[in-house]
Amino acid sequence: MRRNTGRYALILAGGRGTRFWPRSRRSRAKQVLRFLGERSLIQQTVDRLGPVIPPDRVWVLTNDHLRDEIVRQLPEVPRQQILAEPAQRNTAPAIGLAAHILQSVEPDALMGVFPSDHVIAKPARYLRFVRQAFHAAAQGNIVVLGIQARWPETGYGYIEFPKDARAGSLEPFKVRRFREKPDLKTAMRYLKAGNFYWNAGMFFWRTSVLLDALREFQPKTATLLASLPEFRSRRFASALKQVFPNCENISIDYAVLEKARTVAGFATDDFGWNDVGSWNAVYELLPRDRDGNVLRSEALAESSSGNYVDAGGKLVALLGVRDLLVVDTPDALLIADRSRAQEVGDLVKKLEQQKRDELL
Amino acid sequence: MRRNTGRYALILAGGRGTRFWPRSRRSRAKQVLRFLGERSLIQQTVDRLGPVIPPDRVWVLTNDHLRDEIVRQLPEVPRQQILAEPAQRNTAPAIGLAAHILQSVEPDALMGVFPSDHVIAKPARYLRFVRQAFHAAAQGNIVVLGIQARWPETGYGYIEFPKDARAGSLEPFKVRRFREKPDLKTAMRYLKAGNFYWNAGMFFWRTSVLLDALREFQPKTATLLASLPEFRSRRFASALKQVFPNCENISIDYAVLEKARTVAGFATDDFGWNDVGSWNAVYELLPRDRDGNVLRSEALAESSSGNYVDAGGKLVALLGVRDLLVVDTPDALLIADRSRAQEVGDLVKKLEQQKRDELL
Repeated sequence: MRRNTGRYALILAGGRGTRFWPRSRRSRAKQVLRFLGERSLIQQTVDRLGPVIPPDRVWVLTNDHLRDEIVRQLPEVPRQQILAEPAQRNTAPAIGLAAHILQSVEPDALMGVFPSDHVIAKPARYLRFVRQAFHAAAQGNIVVLGIQARWPETGYGYIEFPKDARAGSLEPFKVRRFREKPDLKTAMRYLKAGNFYWNAGMFFWRTSVLLDALREFQPKTATLLASLPEFRSRRFASALKQVFPNCENISIDYAVLEKARTVAGFATDDFGWNDVGSWNAVYELLPRDRDGNVLRSEALAESSSGNYVDAGGKLVALLGVRDLLVVDTPDALLIADRSRAQEVGDLVKKLEQQKRDELL
Repeated sequence: MRRNTGRYALILAGGRGTRFWPRSRRSRAKQVLRFLGERSLIQQTVDRLGPVIPPDRVWVLTNDHLRDEIVRQLPEVPRQQILAEPAQRNTAPAIGLAAHILQSVEPDALMGVFPSDHVIAKPARYLRFVRQAFHAAAQGNIVVLGIQARWPETGYGYIEFPKDARAGSLEPFKVRRFREKPDLKTAMRYLKAGNFYWNAGMFFWRTSVLLDALREFQPKTATLLASLPEFRSRRFASALKQVFPNCENISIDYAVLEKARTVAGFATDDFGWNDVGSWNAVYELLPRDRDGNVLRSEALAESSSGNYVDAGGKLVALLGVRDLLVVDTPDALLIADRSRAQEVGDLVKKLEQQKRDELL
């Protein structure tokens, strides 16, 4: 008989979101920015989960640059549950570490993994699936939420469901296969087929189930994590600094999901999920004026349409310009064609190569 | 027999240059900005005239907003020769006032009138004409310099010379007629005809000749100016405040030049004159990189061409944008298509209507 164990959230908040430069910086990454509403994306994540997982059962994994800001933004989450990874080692070690700690807090706990930087327009509808996913995880399954594909996206991995999987079903299906980011032709085939869902990085399992899988498929990382002292011990932080950088740099998708014999998946229907992948996504998520401009600063727009303007307290005058992203900060100004929004991250790479640390 | 009177320069520096917003403001108008080289346009004007008119014979008429800055920029010009007009009354009263004062400083002085906000690429060549113009003025003529038209410009007035006037002649021709700003068709005819020259606002005369003409054609303004006390008297400033606003608001072109029976004109050839009429003119005057960008700030330009960027100490990242003007200041940012540069002044008018004085 299963114990009635508690539900915990692990929010992964170690990303940088360089595509939101110059607004995003190492210490102000995408998840802590407020570009959609009054609350930052990570605050929205905790708010949204509230009816299912109270904040005192929320854990956050982030990095040293961001931890202070996240502690400030999430006063309702116990600060010792907001951890900075000593090194970036992708999602498998991060999730393994969290499972290891949670296991010591409550053996066999139910754990949901959530990105910190997505939006969900219909949270009540979303939570129906989250509750069902925890339910399926309580049965001992590895569980994933699939997002119904809305266009042939080449930037996400896909989850292949059985051909008869019905979108919106509150019962899980057995995942046929995980698929890596496809090329456009393949993505179009997936979209047409209808049984391929986006993998949005939302996973559910008992900590014991995940740790078993990690031991089986990533024995080195599992052994390293098992060598850590008790989470509450004084030696934990320094031991983690020693151990964590030696873990394998691999995503949970490669490390566990693709190898697991069975994964239960929910073929969700539309709850307004958006991973806010670029400034253009922000533009598309916000209300526009009749010229298709999103003007987040005071602006004077003359013969100008389709622009996104975010310039703090400064007046921006636009004259005869179209489809621009304009993001102004005290030390850097971005002006990009909206169709190039995905390439903003490449600019940041260039600044890194040029060692312009003050702008990163 | 003519006395060998001295040459004086009157530099008209009361304009605002709103087309250079947001860099230009009431107290930082176009003529005091340094967008071409290390020296501001008014400093370049004084420098350029130096070999013909020493700075202690330079007089400047400006307004209250600009006087302090001009005094700072022109330490070699006696500060009592830098005057603020009590009101904006176009060029006829301003020039009349200066002639009146100069007449009291040196009766029958030779006076050249010069705009403060133009550039001249070949000053030595230019000064040959200036010397000849003073020479013709010493003979009692009203003298004007015409600029050989290089394109069918509709923004300038034209000087019609005799059909056989030879460009570059160091002898003056009798001006046939002054022509107002033409429409494009007319401007194209002027260009084709070859004997129509741009009126660049450079005039030469004896003060006595100008004052006589003013008495004849603008008796009201002449009488008002004649009522002023001695320039060095204590009462001068307060009397000017009373008198000047009552002068007729009219340009010297309409008030005197078009009415004078004879005007001597020089049909100059190219000395690299440019009135720097807009940001686009600045773009065209400066060296460009191989992508046609003029980057006056540190910039990262990716797939971007034909842009003008001036953003102070800030890094500007351009991504996939073309032919933009980008001018950033602490409180206002302009992003305009270069082809719309002439319309920047209209934006300033809108800000005036909105009473945004802090941005003007």
